[in-house]
Amino acid sequence: MKQIHLYIFGIGNVGSTLINQVLQSHSFFKNKHNLDLKIIGLANSKRVLIDPNGMTQKWKEDFSSISIVRESDSFYKVANLYDVTKIAIDATASKELSQHYPELLDHNFNIITANKIANTLSQSFYDVIRTALKNKGLQFEYETNVGAGLPIINAVRDLYNSGEQLFAINGVFSGSLSYIFNRFSEENKPFSEIVIDALKDGYTEPDPREDLSGNDVARKLLVLAREAGLKLEFDDIEIDNLVIPSLRTASLNQFLDQVTLLDEVLQEKKDALASDQVLRHLGELDVVNGVLKVSLKAVPKSSPAGQLKGSDGFFEIYSESYASHPLVIKGAGAGREVTARGLLSDIIKVSKTCKEVLVAG
Amino acid sequence: MKQIHLYIFGIGNVGSTLINQVLQSHSFFKNKHNLDLKIIGLANSKRVLIDPNGMTQKWKEDFSSISIVRESDSFYKVANLYDVTKIAIDATASKELSQHYPELLDHNFNIITANKIANTLSQSFYDVIRTALKNKGLQFEYETNVGAGLPIINAVRDLYNSGEQLFAINGVFSGSLSYIFNRFSEENKPFSEIVIDALKDGYTEPDPREDLSGNDVARKLLVLAREAGLKLEFDDIEIDNLVIPSLRTASLNQFLDQVTLLDEVLQEKKDALASDQVLRHLGELDVVNGVLKVSLKAVPKSSPAGQLKGSDGFFEIYSESYASHPLVIKGAGAGREVTARGLLSDIIKVSKTCKEVLVAG
Ligand SMILES: NC(=O)c1ccc[n+]([C@@H]2O[C@H](COP(=O)([O-])OP(=O)(O)OC[C@H]3O[C@@H](n4cnc5c(N)ncnc54)[C@H](OP(=O)(O)O)[C@@H]3O)[C@@H](O)[C@H]2O)c1
Ligand SMILES: NC(=O)c1ccc[n+]([C@@H]2O[C@H](COP(=O)([O-])OP(=O)(O)OC[C@H]3O[C@@H](n4cnc5c(N)ncnc54)[C@H](OP(=O)(O)O)[C@@H]3O)[C@@H](O)[C@H]2O)c1
Repeated sequence: MKQIHLYIFGIGNVGSTLINQVLQSHSFFKNKHNLDLKIIGLANSKRVLIDPNGMTQKWKEDFSSISIVRESDSFYKVANLYDVTKIAIDATASKELSQHYPELLDHNFNIITANKIANTLSQSFYDVIRTALKNKGLQFEYETNVGAGLPIINAVRDLYNSGEQLFAINGVFSGSLSYIFNRFSEENKPFSEIVIDALKDGYTEPDPREDLSGNDVARKLLVLAREAGLKLEFDDIEIDNLVIPSLRTASLNQFLDQVTLLDEVLQEKKDALASDQVLRHLGELDVVNGVLKVSLKAVPKSSPAGQLKGSDGFFEIYSESYASHPLVIKGAGAGREVTARGLLSDIIKVSKTCKEVLVAG
Repeated sequence: MKQIHLYIFGIGNVGSTLINQVLQSHSFFKNKHNLDLKIIGLANSKRVLIDPNGMTQKWKEDFSSISIVRESDSFYKVANLYDVTKIAIDATASKELSQHYPELLDHNFNIITANKIANTLSQSFYDVIRTALKNKGLQFEYETNVGAGLPIINAVRDLYNSGEQLFAINGVFSGSLSYIFNRFSEENKPFSEIVIDALKDGYTEPDPREDLSGNDVARKLLVLAREAGLKLEFDDIEIDNLVIPSLRTASLNQFLDQVTLLDEVLQEKKDALASDQVLRHLGELDVVNGVLKVSLKAVPKSSPAGQLKGSDGFFEIYSESYASHPLVIKGAGAGREVTARGLLSDIIKVSKTCKEVLVAG
């Protein structure tokens, strides 16, 4: 039985669903994979809960009652006591935490993340992480960075790694924006009302401007571009920003108070559509020329993007072997359940393939 | 630099394309993955070519001029001389070769296969292979068993392994039959003429009856069912056979001579369609109840299956998290290029994760 210690950063939508999924399947993982997955640590931005015996179903109560104030080395102290495989899971949207990945690797943590920041800081930071991974023999997985639980990164990586020439990856990259624009097309409601619903239902980023600004899709494009071997920076991406200038630098609360200010521009775009068109939020990655674009476009209702429903993401991969007809992957591209399941899938893969025991600290 | 020795069985459509892809990307694999992939052995059903220095671009000439008559231990003798990772690649449709997999594992070969037979013999043979893999620490990969290069098996395996409950997998499982029925719907040609085209273009199984009988799709369903944890036998599958009884036991040449005998029944089915319908060859795997079905059905032109083009395969995965909207994967589901690339993708994964050196035989 391989012992695996999990340390989960972020206990919001995704993090708390993941904890429940891990606890629920604990004996399946033991029987099927010979893996004993224990959640040793939980953190939000201020507090941590540590239990070397592993969290139980009452983790939420425990977190409220017996968590302690977080210090920068809270997890390292306990992690260093155990010679087992350690996995840090990032279910936050925190830039600060991303910047600590090199330190986590230094302390022999494998890392699995739903957070796109670490992969979309500078190319040099990206390369620093890859070098550390190689030197340490550790793993870093992030399938949920693009399309939540959909196997997009794996598909692109497998093609690229096997020598296939990639041409382009196009589609509706954001499950949240898919949900928002699918409803905006079908319902007679103000744009802002749908945005607030999406936030409440856990579809958007913690700050919905991360989606509406196009930054979230831009990050996804950059993650895929780098996966396909391109060396690019975030600033190289052409982005349509749907947030009006006056709301871009406001606090999150101010933004939410004034979110109806977005309605006019969006309603105008909707009114300008031909009767057989709908608005869709698209990402386009031209691998051959290294051009990345994020834009809101009018597309025919009958096109594949035009036919999307719910929070479906939609990805078309064009390559040497998939030149005339693309490889298409479609399905829920946002949501707690699919994202947590995607993280858990990465956890199982890393747990199965990691070296049995790591040398401590 | 990790040394990897490849032994390729089958140098037909898929095998010969694979050899060319490996040779073409040899330096990419060295630079990107630190892998030195050498093709040491090639075999067809009668002859073998062995070169410890690795095959070159002129492998075809060499095979015609200096290959030798195959003996049961041709590859083992040379393989035992080298303490490196060995991968046997099965690009045949041979049952006999499948039955030799335990022996290959005994000789410390990892196995990668496009051949569906080994995974669809008895459940007990399936289990024997899994036990041998575990005992030996060897790998067995077969992504191309379903949907050629499309990442279907990986998607199903990742969901299942991470504790997700699978409900159903439905779709057009056969790229060859997709090609055949897409053309049969669109063109005014006899069914048999299209079958012969598909055979010539390398889309069908070496014996097209393997496709038309429904057996090929049935095998794919069984591979996926077993991947999803079900214990079933081939005989448990309900199959619509499109080959008329008089042609089922004929030799391949006899069948090809009399293939026009299939036209009448198929034309009748086509003539019976409503104007908004097309014929599609469907596979249905009900994971919850363990029911597997292969059938030719009339579907609306406007449905996802009805809209398929070319040799596109189409798979809908329904599960706990993808319950109302399935996870959909679509794209070329047959053809030399995509199938060879899928094998190469498996080769790279196995090469990257295998133990550095195996103890010889
Ligand atoms: N929701 C989706 O559909 C989806 C899909 C794909 C990817 N993702 C990604 O998943 C991540 C989490 O999304 P979510 O919807 O779960 O967000 P969320 O509900 O807002 O939860 C965020 C959690 O992170 C914690 N946190 C923030 N900064 C932290 C830090 N420095 N250290 C430790 N914890 C910190 C927060 O704690 P406080 O409460 O103390 O602030 C909170 O518990 C994001 O990166 C998002 O892009 C989400
Ligand atoms: N073509 C596709 O689109 C596709 C897609 C997915 C999967 N596949 C699978 O890929 C496999 C190969 O398909 P293909 O289209 O390449 O077939 P193919 O063109 O007919 O080639 C078959 C090759 O296998 C050789 N062979 C037969 N029995 C053998 C044995 N016992 N030992 C060594 N070699 C043997 C044949 O040699 P001889 O010439 O001496 O008979 C020939 O070289 C099949 O299992 C098929 O299901 C194909």
